[in-house]
Amino acid sequence: MDELDLINYIRELWHSCDIPEYVTIGPGDDCASLNVGDSNVAVSTDMVIEGTHFTPDVAPELIARKAVGRAVSDLAAMAARPLCCLSAVSFPADKSDDFQRRLYKSIYDNALEMSVPLVGGDTGSGSSELTVSVTVLGCAGSGGLVRRDGARPGDAVCVTGELGGSIKGRHLDPQPRVNEALKLAENYDLHAMIDISDGLSTDLLHIVTESGVGVRLSAANIPIHKDALALAQNTNGWENQVIINALGDGEDYELLFCLPENQANNLACSGIDGVKVSIIGSIVKDRENKSILWPDGTQTKLRDLGWHHLKNK
Amino acid sequence: MDELDLINYIRELWHSCDIPEYVTIGPGDDCASLNVGDSNVAVSTDMVIEGTHFTPDVAPELIARKAVGRAVSDLAAMAARPLCCLSAVSFPADKSDDFQRRLYKSIYDNALEMSVPLVGGDTGSGSSELTVSVTVLGCAGSGGLVRRDGARPGDAVCVTGELGGSIKGRHLDPQPRVNEALKLAENYDLHAMIDISDGLSTDLLHIVTESGVGVRLSAANIPIHKDALALAQNTNGWENQVIINALGDGEDYELLFCLPENQANNLACSGIDGVKVSIIGSIVKDRENKSILWPDGTQTKLRDLGWHHLKNK
Repeated sequence: MDELDLINYIRELWHSCDIPEYVTIGPGDDCASLNVGDSNVAVSTDMVIEGTHFTPDVAPELIARKAVGRAVSDLAAMAARPLCCLSAVSFPADKSDDFQRRLYKSIYDNALEMSVPLVGGDTGSGSSELTVSVTVLGCAGSGGLVRRDGARPGDAVCVTGELGGSIKGRHLDPQPRVNEALKLAENYDLHAMIDISDGLSTDLLHIVTESGVGVRLSAANIPIHKDALALAQNTNGWENQVIINALGDGEDYELLFCLPENQANNLACSGIDGVKVSIIGSIVKDRENKSILWPDGTQTKLRDLGWHHLKNK
Repeated sequence: MDELDLINYIRELWHSCDIPEYVTIGPGDDCASLNVGDSNVAVSTDMVIEGTHFTPDVAPELIARKAVGRAVSDLAAMAARPLCCLSAVSFPADKSDDFQRRLYKSIYDNALEMSVPLVGGDTGSGSSELTVSVTVLGCAGSGGLVRRDGARPGDAVCVTGELGGSIKGRHLDPQPRVNEALKLAENYDLHAMIDISDGLSTDLLHIVTESGVGVRLSAANIPIHKDALALAQNTNGWENQVIINALGDGEDYELLFCLPENQANNLACSGIDGVKVSIIGSIVKDRENKSILWPDGTQTKLRDLGWHHLKNK
């Protein structure tokens, strides 16, 4: 049973009962959202676990940065304006007071830096592995919240930055694209958006599956990070391997979004807030058509190459 | 380093930097709160860990109930109206798919029952112990949010229900006093409130310490739960032991609050929403004076007998 099975199970429960009208986005997107008074509040929880998301030797400063950054990236994915965060930390008995203080100091500092001041949380002991959950709250900016299920045939598929090879270090240093997302939502007709946390292929398949559309991806247009190149070099067929890294590695924390083609063309020229934007494919009507065109001219089915939580069970 | 040390450390950080004005309650109370548009949003995170908060043999339905109920009780503690919740669950590899589904079904059902529909969350694997974090969101009712730091000299100290002996079963079946708290805040001038999660003595000391006042507690007036009696029977000095149980056991999830004495007298006659209210002491000006009067007429310093997270480290 992987995480998607569980999400689908929760969605089944969700659709089987009456949910209050103030809940405007329920389980399954990067954030849920609620109408509270005259505001639209976005909220998301993200968790990192020692041994799964970081190795036991990683410094508390990096664990904190990863934990907060991943959660804030969920706000970026919806184009939500950050408000605050809370943390729940379970410490194993072997973590010293110094480690605890350094972790909290870094959660605190990173949260402030990312505009989500730490307003509360919970602390426990007795687990064998350190786990850190971070819940972030945000609110809709002037462009509104952007869901993942609104992609339309004819849309261009765009991505910020460069992808792949995050394991070389960026996976511990997420740079959530909050400002870029807010500007995108304010100035363009975004039909769908997600942050790339599980890998381009997985996250793109989330968008198209939930939007009920298909996609044609152009491998040659995927922006490759130098870390993906470094990982692939000296392997057989490295030209394809870099693309596979970019499709599957995850933890890029870039924005993947769909919008009308003419707007995408402008954006690919201008970038957003100094960050490169690449057009990597287009949305098609046929939901069975999920394909990738490789640089050698062959076309294959777009497979899910990304990271699956619980997949090792 | 116990949980209070960490909270105090976070408060130090909090007071050392500029916090946005929309944060109206920061770390240290049962919930934080934010002004969002025209609303006041309350938010809290609570975590349960296998081996610390429940034994490995406990059914997933009870774990879920405890995890959700504890968090919702934090909303009750502030007199906040429940809105929604999110969960972060870390599963050990030995938990079956059936266990996972039962846990999520019960989180879902309990959340709905307690008026905090589950709108999102995160799931991970690889921990040795099951951990469940629940974040709840609420909003201020017409009586406003009630903090823990507003007790005033002359206030009566009141408690709902009966205390002690929760280990006999109630610790796995919290009944958050949400409706009672909303009615109290609407109809009475509550100066301070907290839910009893760590034990009457600990939680009362939170109120008085943070309010900068003292307290005189009357042991004879503490409402004793039959579970506290059952635990104490056959022990030497059982008459005092039941009181010690009521002072220290924790996980009662009753409301402990301070309000003007004349209002408390009315409330003690009428109860609230069918629930008994007892006057158990009074707030005094001298913050050094934290005392308890025992049934035999002796008076001692009110000691902190409650539950301390991380205390076993």
